[in-house]
Order: sequence, then structure tokens, then C-alpha cells
Amino acid sequence: MNGLFAGSFSPPTNGHIDIILRSAPMFETLYVAVMANPDKTYLFSPSERIDMLQECVGTLPNVRLIQGSGLTSILAQKLGCHMLVRGVRDSSDYDYEKKMADMNFALCGVDTLLLPARQSLSQVSSSLVLEIAQLGGDVSKFVPETVLNHIQTALKKEC
Amino acid sequence: MNGLFAGSFSPPTNGHIDIILRSAPMFETLYVAVMANPDKTYLFSPSERIDMLQECVGTLPNVRLIQGSGLTSILAQKLGCHMLVRGVRDSSDYDYEKKMADMNFALCGVDTLLLPARQSLSQVSSSLVLEIAQLGGDVSKFVPETVLNHIQTALKKEC
Amino acid sequence: MNGLFAGSFSPPTNGHIDIILRSAPMFETLYVAVMANPDKTYLFSPSERIDMLQECVGTLPNVRLIQGSGLTSILAQKLGCHMLVRGVRDSSDYDYEKKMADMNFALCGVDTLLLPARQSLSQVSSSLVLEIAQLGGDVSKFVPETVLNHIQTALKKEC
Amino acid sequence: MNGLFAGSFSPPTNGHIDIILRSAPMFETLYVAVMANPDKTYLFSPSERIDMLQECVGTLPNVRLIQGSGLTSILAQKLGCHMLVRGVRDSSDYDYEKKMADMNFALCGVDTLLLPARQSLSQVSSSLVLEIAQLGGDVSKFVPETVLNHIQTALKKEC
Amino acid sequence: MNGLFAGSFSPPTNGHIDIILRSAPMFETLYVAVMANPDKTYLFSPSERIDMLQECVGTLPNVRLIQGSGLTSILAQKLGCHMLVRGVRDSSDYDYEKKMADMNFALCGVDTLLLPARQSLSQVSSSLVLEIAQLGGDVSKFVPETVLNHIQTALKKEC
Amino acid sequence: MNGLFAGSFSPPTNGHIDIILRSAPMFETLYVAVMANPDKTYLFSPSERIDMLQECVGTLPNVRLIQGSGLTSILAQKLGCHMLVRGVRDSSDYDYEKKMADMNFALCGVDTLLLPARQSLSQVSSSLVLEIAQLGGDVSKFVPETVLNHIQTALKKEC
Repeated sequence: MNGLFAGSFSPPTNGHIDIILRSAPMFETLYVAVMANPDKTYLFSPSERIDMLQECVGTLPNVRLIQGSGLTSILAQKLGCHMLVRGVRDSSDYDYEKKMADMNFALCGVDTLLLPARQSLSQVSSSLVLEIAQLGGDVSKFVPETVLNHIQTALKKEC
Repeated sequence: MNGLFAGSFSPPTNGHIDIILRSAPMFETLYVAVMANPDKTYLFSPSERIDMLQECVGTLPNVRLIQGSGLTSILAQKLGCHMLVRGVRDSSDYDYEKKMADMNFALCGVDTLLLPARQSLSQVSSSLVLEIAQLGGDVSKFVPETVLNHIQTALKKEC
Repeated sequence: MNGLFAGSFSPPTNGHIDIILRSAPMFETLYVAVMANPDKTYLFSPSERIDMLQECVGTLPNVRLIQGSGLTSILAQKLGCHMLVRGVRDSSDYDYEKKMADMNFALCGVDTLLLPARQSLSQVSSSLVLEIAQLGGDVSKFVPETVLNHIQTALKKEC
Repeated sequence: MNGLFAGSFSPPTNGHIDIILRSAPMFETLYVAVMANPDKTYLFSPSERIDMLQECVGTLPNVRLIQGSGLTSILAQKLGCHMLVRGVRDSSDYDYEKKMADMNFALCGVDTLLLPARQSLSQVSSSLVLEIAQLGGDVSKFVPETVLNHIQTALKKEC
Repeated sequence: MNGLFAGSFSPPTNGHIDIILRSAPMFETLYVAVMANPDKTYLFSPSERIDMLQECVGTLPNVRLIQGSGLTSILAQKLGCHMLVRGVRDSSDYDYEKKMADMNFALCGVDTLLLPARQSLSQVSSSLVLEIAQLGGDVSKFVPETVLNHIQTALKKEC
Repeated sequence: MNGLFAGSFSPPTNGHIDIILRSAPMFETLYVAVMANPDKTYLFSPSERIDMLQECVGTLPNVRLIQGSGLTSILAQKLGCHMLVRGVRDSSDYDYEKKMADMNFALCGVDTLLLPARQSLSQVSSSLVLEIAQLGGDVSKFVPETVLNHIQTALKKEC
């Protein structure tokens, strides 16, 4: 069975990496898809996000990094993935992911598994990490070292 | 007793229609109010939303479709409605609706009843349906056929 | 349409009375059923619970107090009630009531409406009121005066 | 990777069967363990529960039914299972399963994946099914036919 | 020990004042910080928000009103505050505040205490109060009188 | 201001100790009350629970260990404590503690502050720790060493 972990990964965090490491062994191939969302602006381009993921999990033999767009459930069908992978941090996240899981099953029959975040990572999200970094906080505990470098470079450019 | 089900209905979904069908029999008149919200932009104009509702529930004898604006609780007072009707899909929805119910009671003494969404509709919302349709997904399970036609026409115009 | 508000009411609290007062006007007849539960022991017998309810809401013209047993959904069918009435105090309550509503609909097609507890009553339950009274606390804010008398008499007998 | 789905399964429901069918394809072997809990009394003996599971999922090639006792995390270690499988029905379930997942990881490094219940099964639990059956309700929608027979036989004996 | 209650306070509500009154006695000094957030536009300038707070709690001997910016946890460190103070209104609020508390502890070792909102104030927030006032609703129950005057003046200017 | 942290503490866990260490500095005196509950049976007697707490936090200058009974809010009044202290681990805990806080305020005007559990302790409770220990699990990560000794001695006696 193949799995699909789709997200914006702008940037990838230790939370994302943890989900990839924990779920990859259950699948023949785990696709990790950087989804383009034309309605939002992100600090990192899709290709830079794939570069960051490559630097973090590129050596995992059965993980394939791709760029995606459109509906996640349709992408899953195209890739032959029967299972979506999602991390969940608390009951509010759960309520959201439950609705998405039900919708993706209704749309295409694609299933969803949820991995509860590790305790030490349950407060980490891309948006919060970026917000902290932009305000001068030290986010080195929450992202891989290579991502930290990308963040610092991107924030210097922004100024 | 009269009831008021107010919302943006952009577009009406099977979830909305279900709430109307289930709650109408409890009231002398159930007002369904399409609320104008000048701060948001919607795919459908208020009058087109009323048209869609008319096509879906226009034959129900005690349902009156109206256009509203301003505070829901003040509208309820003007209409002689003592009870607001709201659908709830999960505990996050509940927390939001509870605060609104407490506020509407504090403002005008108007009460609120909550109908839990039917299991098969608990992931359906106007915004998610539109997002899926815009990304090319098939939303025919989630909206009445007439609404589906309106969505398809509106999306063609958008392109 | 008829409604059914079923519970153990051991004893009725201001929370229960509030739900009855708010929901009765929506129904032709609102049945309030004291459910016997042979697996639990209660401080008050079913008939004493009906007496207390009678003293509190007996003058409401369309409220009928009855004693019930077995499945609530089957009782609703027998009584010609299409709608169950339940109070909800917080998101944990909601999660429980949602499951019960889904189950009662699956069993007999009976519907459920939820009334969010008034803010001043959102911490009140029969079991907590009894526990406080047994420990010597003053529960006069949480139950009607007649119920308070029943509690005091029952606790004296218990000693 | 091997998985472990441990529970009391007294009796197995359509919810349990659904979790087994959805998770088995992700594992080399999925162990389904009927856990003995000496502190509780169950309507069905552990061996009858295994019989029921055998009748429901016995033909799945990589599912192994076993009887277990003690700590689930230690059982997982003994069986060489790195991943526990759990179904989740709502946010209250999630809060409970999150604590158990964190505890099992802290105890033995064993991981947990959560499968959100299918919409049509989100209100089904062994205890609720039994309670309904004992009160004369029709539970044929919620358990496999063979389990229904076991329930009816067991309830006749009880009388 | 010093405490820090940071927020946007645009405008201060009875909910905020209640949190200040309840938490101030636990601290040597309770700092109340009006945080500037350059990414958002507010009806009231930071200095006007401090003025409003001054009018409401200026006589409390150990409360110090300040203007802040950047990360709350770094501000707490600079001020010698070991404890952040936050109000919580329901379980959704809790989930958000828990993540923030974990993040602030991870960033700087600063702790967080949560005060559950008083029942009569559990639906009150600055944004909801402003929205109601802008739609012509009477918010005099939810803000101090002096804040009400500021709101009315600001809304007149807006027109 | 004095605080009161009341509970059964059977046994004290690292979660309890953490709450005491974090809250004590905010109070003149923090009372930690081992509450007797005649309706439940506990592995440890109230005096043994006080002994364990003494061994863990006995050196804290402003912490006073006492045995309590009856209503927590009445005990708080007698002790001159205006603030109850409670730990909260997730949104389900929050819902429970919110109701208790509202009730204690309604009964005696006593206030409650909530400390969110540290991430590494958010799954720890007395009952779960005891259950794990009884099933042969290693609970040394979740309780102080002295408590571990008490648990081992008590479990040997039980056999």
C-alpha cells in the first residue's frame, strides 16, 4: 500500500519530519507532496520547500518528494495511494482532520490515518515557527538545522 | 413560536437543507435569512442565494425566505422569532455556537437550539464545497442538484 | 410535533427545569419521562422524581410527566414523539449527546435537538448537586425550593 | 512492520471490523488481541470473543487473533509490533487515545496510529450495542450477523 | 513573583478586567502589556488602549500598564516575569492556550497560568464586542463604561 | 493570598509535584490537602499519602500538607484560601475543571487557577500509574523515587 502526506511545508518542521519517519515504514512508497495553493502567499516557493524536505528526509529509501496541486484526494488517486497521512496535535486539530478525512473518503474513497504528535512537538506548526522567527525568537528546537538556515536566509531577504 | 435560521448560504448545502427540513415542523413560521455581510465577498449575491433556497425548500408551507442584515438577534426580535436554529457538526462547532447563543441571549433574550448534523453530512460546509468545486472535485453528493448548476455556472463565469 | 425529554431527574435541577421551559413552547406536547434504570441505585424513587417534577412544572399546559423504561428511542416512537430534547453544557457533553443522537436516529429515525445550558447553569447536574448536598453544601441556587426540601428529607433518612 | 489492535471486543462491532479491514493492509502481520481484564466482568469470555472475531475476519491472510493480558505496550514488544492501532470516534475519544499513545510510547517506545471512525459507525461501541440489545433494541446495523447471533444467545442465557 | 498579562486589548472588555482583578493579588507586580502587532489593523491605537486600561484598572496598586512588542516570552524575560496570565473561555480556547503555553516554556522557560472565564463573561471577546457595536448592538454589558464611550467615539469617526 | 491544591494523591505523581512547584511561589501559603473520600477505596491511606507528599515537597518553605474532607470550597474558606489550584492535561480535563471552578465559585466565591500540564507529563495520572504498576510496568518516569518505593511495597502486600 502507498501513502500520501500532503501539506504546504512552508517550512518543514520537526513535527513534519517526525510524521514522515513514523509513517514511512508502513508503506511501500510514502509520497510527500508539497501542495501549491495559489490563494495563499508563502515565504518559501514550492521548489524551495521540496529542497528543504530533500535535505531532511532525502535518504529515506521509500519516501518520494513531489509537488502537487488541486485536491489531495484526486492526487492520491493518481498516485495510487489509498491512505492519507496526517499529524494531529490536539482535539481541535482532530475535529478539523476528521472532517477532511470524511470528505476525502466521500470524494474518492481514499482513507486517512492520524498520527498523534509526539509530546515534545505538540505545539509546533510551520506558521507559529515562522511567526516566532520573524519576531526574533530562537526556533532551532523546532526545525532541522538545514531548515533553520533557509529561514534565516529568507528573513534577511525580507528586510 | 417562530424560528430563525440565519446564515450566508453561499451556497446552500445538503447540510442546510437538512436543518431546515428537521426544524421547520417545530415552528409556526421558520424564517430562513440570507445575511448580507459587507466585509466579505461571496461567489453568490444575496438574491441568487435566496433563489437557490427557493428552488430547494420553496414548497415548504411554513418556511419564509428573507434577506437580512445587521445583528441576527435584532433581526429575530423584529421578526418575532424567539428561537434561533443552528446546525452543529462537531465539538469545535459547538464551542463557537455556544458563545454565539450566550451572546444572542445576553443581547436580546433570544434563545438558540442546536441540531447535530446527520452523520453523512457532518463534514459538509459551504466553504469546503466551494473550495472542492473550484479545484475540480465532484460535489454532487453535498448540494442539491439546482445548487450544483448554480455553482457550475458561477465557476465558468469566474474563469 | 411532540417532543420527549427523558432522563433520570434524580433530582430535577434548575438546569432541567430551564430545558423544559425553553423547549415546551415548540411542541404540541412535551413529554418529560423519568426513566427507570434497574442497574443503578438512586436516592429518589421514580414516583418521587415525578412528584418533584409535578411540583416544578405541573402547571405548564402542554407538559406531560410520565414514567418510562427501556430504550428512549422506542419510548419516543410509542408516544408519537419525533424529537428528543437534550441539554448540553460543554463540548464533552456535546460529544456524548452527538453519539446518542446518531444512535437514536439509526435505531428508530427519531431526531434530537440540543439546548445549550444557560451560562449560570452550565455547571449544574443532578449528581454534582447531590454530592454537594451530602457533603453539607448549600445547593439552594441549583434546584427549585421544593426539590431542596425533598433532598433534605432524603438525606436525613439516609443518616 | 507489524501492528497490534488490542481491545476487549465484547462483542466485536462493525466499528472494530472496519478498523481491522482498513489497517491490515499496512502491516506484514496485524495482531488482534482480545485483552483479559480481571477487574471487569464481560458478557462474553475471551475465547468466545476470539471465536466471534474468527468468524468475522478469520479469512484475512495477515490478521492473527490472539488472547492477551497485562500491558498492551509490553504485549506489543513481545509480539514485535512497533505500531498500535486504535479507532477514534470524536474529540473526547481523541483526548483519551492521545494520553494512552503518549504513555505507551513512554513505557516501551511503541507508536500508535489512529483511524477516525467511518461516519456511519461513529456512534457504535461494544458497551452501547450491548446496552441497546439488553433493552430490546435491534442492533443488527451495528454488528456482523454472526455476532448478532452470539448476543441473542448470551442474552437468552442471562434471563 | 511577577506576572504578565499580554494581549491586544482593542478594546479592553469586562473579561479582561476580570482576569486582571483576579490575578493581580497573586503577584508582586502584574504587568499588563498592550502588544503592538504590525500585521493587523486595530480600531484603537496602542496608546488609546493603554488609556482605556488606565481608566479601568489604573488604581490597582500592583498593576503596571505597558506597551509591548515582539515575542511575549521575551518580553516576560525582560520584565522579570516568570508567569504569563491568560483567560480561557472554552475547550477550543484551551487547546490554543495550551500550545502557546508549551511554546513559551520551550522558548524561554516562562510559565503560564490559565483563569477560566466567569460564567457570565464566557462569550465576551474584543472582536465580538466590536462587531456587535458596529452592527448597532448594545455592548454596555460587556465593557466598562469608559470603554463604551471610546467605542462610540471611534465608531462615529469611522462613519 | 493563600492557595489550596486539593486531591486524592493516591499516589502523588510527578504531575502533582510539578503543579506544587510551579504554583507555590505565587502564594503566601500553598495548602496541599489530601482529601478523604469515604465512597472510594484507595491503595494508600490518607496518612500514607501525606507521608509521600512530605518526602517529595516537605522542604518547600510555604507548602503546608494537610488532610481534608468534605467540600473543597468549604475547606478553602476555613483555611483562608481564595484560590484553588488545579492541573489540566487536555480539553476533556478542561471541561471538567471548568464546571468544578464554576461550582466552587457559586458555592463560596472561591476562585480557581489552572496550570496546563508540562508536555512530558500530560499523560500521567495517579490511576493510570497505579494500573500500569499493577500490570508490571515500569512507572519510574512518572513518580518520585520515594513514591515508587511506596507503590512497590503496597503492591507486594496486595498479592
